[in-house]
Amino acid sequence: VDKVKLLDQRRLPAEELYLETRDYHDVIEAIRTLAIRGAPAIGVAAAMGAALGALSLDTRDGKEFQSRFQDICREIAAARPTAVNLFWALDRVLLVAQEHADESVDAIKAHLVTEAQTMLKEDDTTNRRMAQAGQVLIRDGQRVLTHCNTGALATGAYGTALGVLRAAWEAGKRFSVWVDETRPLLQGARLTTWELGKLGIPYTLIPDGAAATLMHQGKVDLVILGADRIAANGDTANKIGTYSVAVLAHHHGIPFYVAAPLSTFDFSIPDGDHIPVEERDAEEVTHLWGQSVAPAGAPALNLAFDVTPHDFIAGIVTEKGIMEPPFTSSLKPYRPAQG
Amino acid sequence: VDKVKLLDQRRLPAEELYLETRDYHDVIEAIRTLAIRGAPAIGVAAAMGAALGALSLDTRDGKEFQSRFQDICREIAAARPTAVNLFWALDRVLLVAQEHADESVDAIKAHLVTEAQTMLKEDDTTNRRMAQAGQVLIRDGQRVLTHCNTGALATGAYGTALGVLRAAWEAGKRFSVWVDETRPLLQGARLTTWELGKLGIPYTLIPDGAAATLMHQGKVDLVILGADRIAANGDTANKIGTYSVAVLAHHHGIPFYVAAPLSTFDFSIPDGDHIPVEERDAEEVTHLWGQSVAPAGAPALNLAFDVTPHDFIAGIVTEKGIMEPPFTSSLKPYRPAQG
Repeated sequence: VDKVKLLDQRRLPAEELYLETRDYHDVIEAIRTLAIRGAPAIGVAAAMGAALGALSLDTRDGKEFQSRFQDICREIAAARPTAVNLFWALDRVLLVAQEHADESVDAIKAHLVTEAQTMLKEDDTTNRRMAQAGQVLIRDGQRVLTHCNTGALATGAYGTALGVLRAAWEAGKRFSVWVDETRPLLQGARLTTWELGKLGIPYTLIPDGAAATLMHQGKVDLVILGADRIAANGDTANKIGTYSVAVLAHHHGIPFYVAAPLSTFDFSIPDGDHIPVEERDAEEVTHLWGQSVAPAGAPALNLAFDVTPHDFIAGIVTEKGIMEPPFTSSLKPYRPAQG
Repeated sequence: VDKVKLLDQRRLPAEELYLETRDYHDVIEAIRTLAIRGAPAIGVAAAMGAALGALSLDTRDGKEFQSRFQDICREIAAARPTAVNLFWALDRVLLVAQEHADESVDAIKAHLVTEAQTMLKEDDTTNRRMAQAGQVLIRDGQRVLTHCNTGALATGAYGTALGVLRAAWEAGKRFSVWVDETRPLLQGARLTTWELGKLGIPYTLIPDGAAATLMHQGKVDLVILGADRIAANGDTANKIGTYSVAVLAHHHGIPFYVAAPLSTFDFSIPDGDHIPVEERDAEEVTHLWGQSVAPAGAPALNLAFDVTPHDFIAGIVTEKGIMEPPFTSSLKPYRPAQG
């Protein structure tokens, strides 16, 4: 196993194009350009990229290998700043390399490949546990609103928030989904619709600005969406537009849930103020498929994420069950021991 | 004068294309397809279309003329359901035709042409008065958020909410504007940016879902936007996404203003529940410039407007000054006498 195959999400739903590569630079580029996206998927891809990078190192010297492997991981870490799964995955492969530092370089490479594959499998298991834990929230006849894409595409295999809906559907519950199109990159319009369609779950696509009106009309019973990084107090960074949905749900008395694996929690930061929010190219707002929707040179702000304070969150669905407020207490058993 | 010239707003900002027509059906089509849009502009266009329709009638019989002219007005009235300026303008030209019913058909036609031209001039005057009344709200250094397009393009000439900003700028105040792109038809991205750019007013374009985050960061000092129909109690129908902005502004303690001429008020309805909200083709959500952004056949909901309850509105800027809550009291002097 010396190559990585990934679905180029930028082409969806028009085209199902797979990229195949042996070069970890391509994996970085795929993460940077959102060919691969979604916090858990980024984590797995980072581990795969690191393994490819390790395989490409031509040294037999253990010390040199460790040092160059660390450089590769640093390079991958710079691809995107917000999703903590990226750093979590890289910390994990770095640890594997260190733990086996006394073995041959070839042996370490094999361990790294295995670890990346294990992480892909674990992601699937974690997602399915999370989905089972969360599906109790979904009831027959509900109209659920979601934002961005949190399905199989955003993860190793099953999905986080969309995984919860999938498990509920598979358990025989019947409900429908309002899909926020999620500007600027339309992950809702392009990806969530595509996944819900394949699963046979009924949905209706809406512009992001219409969610409030549907809430006012009593047509939204529950909100569930994903996360890119969750601080120790439960403050949650997620796709831009999430905080808007959270405030609106709060105003209309609608429960707002987040679904994310424990690998999305960053216990090293006390609250959301410490989460770096990526600002991306203004062209993602001013252009669509290369065509301009605004006057040439129009200034635009493209915050990729926003942070939802924990008091707007009714619960966080994880593979260890649904965490309830106060999150500092409910999350305590899962906090890594302080070093 | 026997033709109407209008700027096709669908092509902006890429192209400044003018349509010129002698056929009132073209005016209906322009209103229906949003080549012309914005409540006041729709009102003026409707009057112009009615005048063109009158000119096209080949009868010399007064009674037949009145009857066929009424049919034409009914046809124009069916172009769009929400903006009340459409019905207001048609009521006004119908009244002109009736008041001169004892004159020759040619004389009535001339009166109708004059009336349409008067309405265009009045719209400009009204807008400028409104702008002067409203510009006191704007202070140096403010960061103002607006939604959709309410400038010269949306009116006969000067603009409503954007007219207020324009007058403030011309009065020497210096501020900046957050422009909601306003999905699905991107009137903010395409038109408001274009107009602000021409006026030299600094702005930044944002996806609709980012407004909440900027509010949370304390970067929005005031919201001002337009209206398509205002009920007697101040409940305001405007472009979809407006209610969302209103709730978010309320939550963050940011004053939310509406700017609209008295012709946008519908005193015949007590509240917003009685405002018909146009539902447009799902393709406006699933496609952009003919290109699909969602899977083929993806179900989408395209509400063109939403209704903001009056309690979210700090004031309504009109040509008679800024109306303050409770609106039933402040608007009382401008209510037409009950028939």
